Amino acid sequence: MLRLNMERDLLGMFEPKSIAIVGVSRDPKKVGAIVLKNIIRSGYAGKIYPINPNIDSVGNLKFYKSVNDLPEIPDLLVVAVPAKMANIVVEEAGKFGIKNAVVFSAGYKEEGEEGEILENELKNIAQNYNINVLGPNCLGFNNKKNNLNVTFGADIKKSDSLRIISQSGAIATALVDWGETINLGIDSLVTLGNKAVVNENDILNYWNDDGYHPTGLYLESISDGKELINILKKYAKNNPVFILKPGKSVGAVAAMMSHTGAIAGEDSILDEVIKESGAVRCEELSDFFDLGMAFKSGKIVSGPSVAVVTNAGGPAVLTTDTIEKYGLKLAKINEGARKKLIEKLPRMASFVNPIDVLGDSLSARFGEALEIVLQEKSVDSVVAILTPQLMTEIEKTAEIISKLSEKYPQPIFCSFIGGNKIAAGENILNKKNIANFDYPERAIFCLSKLYEWYKNKQNINYELKITNYEFNSEVVKKIISEAKKNNQKVLNNFQSNKLMEVLGLDAPVEEKVAGVAEAIEFAKKNGWPVVLKISGGDLLHKTEVGGVVVDIRSEYKLKKSFEKIKRDNFEMQIQQQIEGGVEIILGIKRDPNFGPVLLFGAGGKMAELVKDRNLRLLPLTEDKVKSMITESKVYALLNGFRNDKVYDLTELYKVIFALEKLMIETPEIEEIEINPAIITHDKTFCVDVKVKI
Amino acid sequence: MLRLNMERDLLGMFEPKSIAIVGVSRDPKKVGAIVLKNIIRSGYAGKIYPINPNIDSVGNLKFYKSVNDLPEIPDLLVVAVPAKMANIVVEEAGKFGIKNAVVFSAGYKEEGEEGEILENELKNIAQNYNINVLGPNCLGFNNKKNNLNVTFGADIKKSDSLRIISQSGAIATALVDWGETINLGIDSLVTLGNKAVVNENDILNYWNDDGYHPTGLYLESISDGKELINILKKYAKNNPVFILKPGKSVGAVAAMMSHTGAIAGEDSILDEVIKESGAVRCEELSDFFDLGMAFKSGKIVSGPSVAVVTNAGGPAVLTTDTIEKYGLKLAKINEGARKKLIEKLPRMASFVNPIDVLGDSLSARFGEALEIVLQEKSVDSVVAILTPQLMTEIEKTAEIISKLSEKYPQPIFCSFIGGNKIAAGENILNKKNIANFDYPERAIFCLSKLYEWYKNKQNINYELKITNYEFNSEVVKKIISEAKKNNQKVLNNFQSNKLMEVLGLDAPVEEKVAGVAEAIEFAKKNGWPVVLKISGGDLLHKTEVGGVVVDIRSEYKLKKSFEKIKRDNFEMQIQQQIEGGVEIILGIKRDPNFGPVLLFGAGGKMAELVKDRNLRLLPLTEDKVKSMITESKVYALLNGFRNDKVYDLTELYKVIFALEKLMIETPEIEEIEINPAIITHDKTFCVDVKVKI
Repeated sequence: MLRLNMERDLLGMFEPKSIAIVGVSRDPKKVGAIVLKNIIRSGYAGKIYPINPNIDSVGNLKFYKSVNDLPEIPDLLVVAVPAKMANIVVEEAGKFGIKNAVVFSAGYKEEGEEGEILENELKNIAQNYNINVLGPNCLGFNNKKNNLNVTFGADIKKSDSLRIISQSGAIATALVDWGETINLGIDSLVTLGNKAVVNENDILNYWNDDGYHPTGLYLESISDGKELINILKKYAKNNPVFILKPGKSVGAVAAMMSHTGAIAGEDSILDEVIKESGAVRCEELSDFFDLGMAFKSGKIVSGPSVAVVTNAGGPAVLTTDTIEKYGLKLAKINEGARKKLIEKLPRMASFVNPIDVLGDSLSARFGEALEIVLQEKSVDSVVAILTPQLMTEIEKTAEIISKLSEKYPQPIFCSFIGGNKIAAGENILNKKNIANFDYPERAIFCLSKLYEWYKNKQNINYELKITNYEFNSEVVKKIISEAKKNNQKVLNNFQSNKLMEVLGLDAPVEEKVAGVAEAIEFAKKNGWPVVLKISGGDLLHKTEVGGVVVDIRSEYKLKKSFEKIKRDNFEMQIQQQIEGGVEIILGIKRDPNFGPVLLFGAGGKMAELVKDRNLRLLPLTEDKVKSMITESKVYALLNGFRNDKVYDLTELYKVIFALEKLMIETPEIEEIEINPAIITHDKTFCVDVKVKI
Repeated sequence: MLRLNMERDLLGMFEPKSIAIVGVSRDPKKVGAIVLKNIIRSGYAGKIYPINPNIDSVGNLKFYKSVNDLPEIPDLLVVAVPAKMANIVVEEAGKFGIKNAVVFSAGYKEEGEEGEILENELKNIAQNYNINVLGPNCLGFNNKKNNLNVTFGADIKKSDSLRIISQSGAIATALVDWGETINLGIDSLVTLGNKAVVNENDILNYWNDDGYHPTGLYLESISDGKELINILKKYAKNNPVFILKPGKSVGAVAAMMSHTGAIAGEDSILDEVIKESGAVRCEELSDFFDLGMAFKSGKIVSGPSVAVVTNAGGPAVLTTDTIEKYGLKLAKINEGARKKLIEKLPRMASFVNPIDVLGDSLSARFGEALEIVLQEKSVDSVVAILTPQLMTEIEKTAEIISKLSEKYPQPIFCSFIGGNKIAAGENILNKKNIANFDYPERAIFCLSKLYEWYKNKQNINYELKITNYEFNSEVVKKIISEAKKNNQKVLNNFQSNKLMEVLGLDAPVEEKVAGVAEAIEFAKKNGWPVVLKISGGDLLHKTEVGGVVVDIRSEYKLKKSFEKIKRDNFEMQIQQQIEGGVEIILGIKRDPNFGPVLLFGAGGKMAELVKDRNLRLLPLTEDKVKSMITESKVYALLNGFRNDKVYDLTELYKVIFALEKLMIETPEIEEIEINPAIITHDKTFCVDVKVKI
């Protein structure tokens, strides 16, 4: 389907004044009947038109024979009939003028070829009649703010700020059940299913208002990456967005295909996309649930310093390990606060962070210690750890924490650890909207994500300035068109080197030589070692026929090598072998979903050992490039390793911006990868350049 | 205290026929009174002698004035008085002939200098009178098997196989409360506190019987590493042992010091120790709790293949990612099973693993799918994922799973995801000893640990054969004693090279040269590049005074360098600069706790980038060395990277066994590190050798 770059009007979908439902039978266990019951029970105040040709009415509710039989054009059509029939109904509705439909039916793309045909048909119908279709293969939506439950799942009991977009109905269902148990309210919940028409971007666009709405996205596919980035850059400024997207493993990719028909892109790019859009990423289902709870207070974590107050030494030690693991740090307790702690706590307590109020602490002591650290401006967040010891006043401690949370700006995350004994305390925390975690490590994880959101949203507005790197683009076009004429998919060595030359970038010195004497002269001038090869053809082919010798370090070996590989009718070529310096990989690839992406990291042999893939979306800025380089692992080598000097990276920046300009001006180039480029103290050599066209 | 290498007799501690308690006051909230109450209430059948000079009796219970006043020597003395007085009481008890004491009192080593003096005093008393002291600063122990609760915490309700040793009383308390909630029984629980006398090794020794007892250890310090390894090698053969030990971060090390006075050793060695001993390691508190639950069924995970059966697509996709992350794999469903699944499940279900029985599945369908995969011998374990959807029969499904678990040998781990709706199902699983996890990722984590235990315990019995690498140990002794005479802490370059020569190991070719012509001759013979240095003194010093030039690649540069650094009264030295090949690090260090440990990994520049620390405890075997090398990251380079040939590692093995023999025969050497050693296709060059003495 052609995606129009315009916002869908989803008001009629999510706040309909009238709803028609197809597929309501007398069997109360069937989906249609359940949805009807849910709509009524949720408190919906608009008109309801159930459709079934065989039923006149049920109770006071009048039924209609078909869509065409309806007394008005309803804002929303709910479709609960099998796939084939669903398409017919949606088309009928389109003709009738209906603009919004929820299709519950399964049996589409997730079911293989036959289903895919049906889904394409549904897409075409939606496009022809301009219908917003939610689904198919979805659970519907629940708009608690407007008291409307258009799902065949449970009602949401409590309204609050949280919003959920989930491609999986089951995850939504489980979250609602869990949320009810811990008093976590929900504002809106939309399940997307196969996303034939309406996708996550449409929903986020529709929601893009002010307010504060933590928003969780469970996605098996990204519908339009570039649009998602643009939308999130606005949306995630006010609303914490946390995204759970599986697909790191081969098995998961196959499982997604058979679940919602989703096809996964390269996963690592998504990390960068989410970060640059001001959102945060979840790794596991527990992250998704826990962050739903963690963001609800609306409190901001604006710095990394965590104070831990505990009645239990062991868990505090474990928490400390985790604080470092997740990039946070233990807040320093300054002298004033320390004195207050010494005054209030018993002699055997620990006055350095983590602050151990001891196992025999009553609620008052716990509260006093908490208040002392909350008064410190250097404390960005607080974790309260409680285990049910002999004298522990569990409920009272929970009450005191609730009050302190109202009084002070920092978030207090709790971990009351145990089972039955701590349950009453947990309930109090839940009621007061204080996040409580089964284990303190989870509290730390969530704090780190709150802080990550705070940092990411600061960085959303990069100043976008495409650098004006100058080169002769006519020559570039000539190289490409020549290669195309030859039906090449990859530039050959000669063409690649020519390209580097046009861009004004450095490559190893190379010369054609007539005889051994000239070759020795070259080596003496340019330094050992050298590479000797027969000229012409591509490198791979030459290697196969034994036409290349690398690592020549002496005249003796150069002479022997020359004799060995020289051939009639071929010229000989000698090349400087760049040694020393730091090998990097540098490339730009056009991602089908997110556009061109720059890759930087350790190159050559090291690339095999070090996972050092640092990505940035184009367009680049100096800041983005700088952060990419300094975050990389190979930066340890560039920044003065052992006795080596710090490398001047001016030439590296030059190469990067040259490649960016090349990719922007030359859509024919699919991908460029330089591995290795070698950064020396003078130059950055593009040694092995691969250009896909 | 001198640790005697003999087993403590702890029968009187854990199965006493008589117990005396010091510190029982009339205040029922004080520790002494609570312990007394706990001992009585837990059903203890032996004699009880409360001691308080000011009380004659309480109810029917006669009190005694002091230890000396007791009518017999009790098997166990419980001490619940402040630290200073506790020491006096224990000494009195020692004189009286008491052999076992539990000391609850805090205020010892965890409290700084003053407390450390008290703790040393307590240790001396224990040694003088041969008393087994548990604690101080502990919560006591709970021996459910013998109905004896000697803690001031809660009773354990249910007896089962699980055993816990915890240095933290709070973690034990929380685990007992959590365990009660999920029907997790406990056999024995011992809290160690400061471990002044009795430590984890003593407890494990005492427990070392047959049976099956999953055993969790929370330790802030390891008391005697070598002994622990020996004990675990026996104990962990039958009993899964899972160890939680914090201390990866700087902050945690400080926090442990003020909690139980524990001093942490290097953390990474512990991973290797645990693995080699046949145990598994936890990272977080949730791991510790969850493994307590996961091991209870006693079922074995003897292979990596997991079958997932689910009524929810999304969570199954996430689970699949996790299976790969934790080194397990999705079980292949063979054609026969697939046919059965197709027969039993609806058309839209997923018949490849993960098997999606669909959201509308009733319990029967869920059970049929489970049974089909359980019948497959290729399935090593099963995960059942359930979300509370419209028609889900939660309790019935739990019942069916329980029955299948009794019938088939594979473990079935469940993840019923949600809150109130799934609670009743959870309860059934808990009652039937089926592990149920809040999130499926936790189930996978635990399965991976069950499998890890299975693998680790297979490897416990290495055939220990110290290789007979031959060298002239007299010369080695001479080198060392010479260095010692000079008060050196590190061997100099000359001595290290000499040492390598004696061991018969290769180092770069080196020659003294009289003039430039000789130097050029050397370079032409041995190949470029070369290193030129003034002779004598240590390398560091020479570099400082500009007496070294590396990376000389041409005659021109060699001539210039020679002129530049040559000095009157100094000879010149020229050395082959080894290029190409693979740089590794190789070292043996004497760990104070676990003895000599071999380190192997990527070396040179790469060591800075790649975390590639692979450790093995001495003594080595060929198998151990082989697994160490193949598990390393640098192995990717050794095993034929790109066009490079596979490296023959015979020379590397030779170096490793030479170093082992050197360390065993030369206790004067504290540490040896070669970084880099360079592995080429001919040789392994020990380029930069550092020997600490």
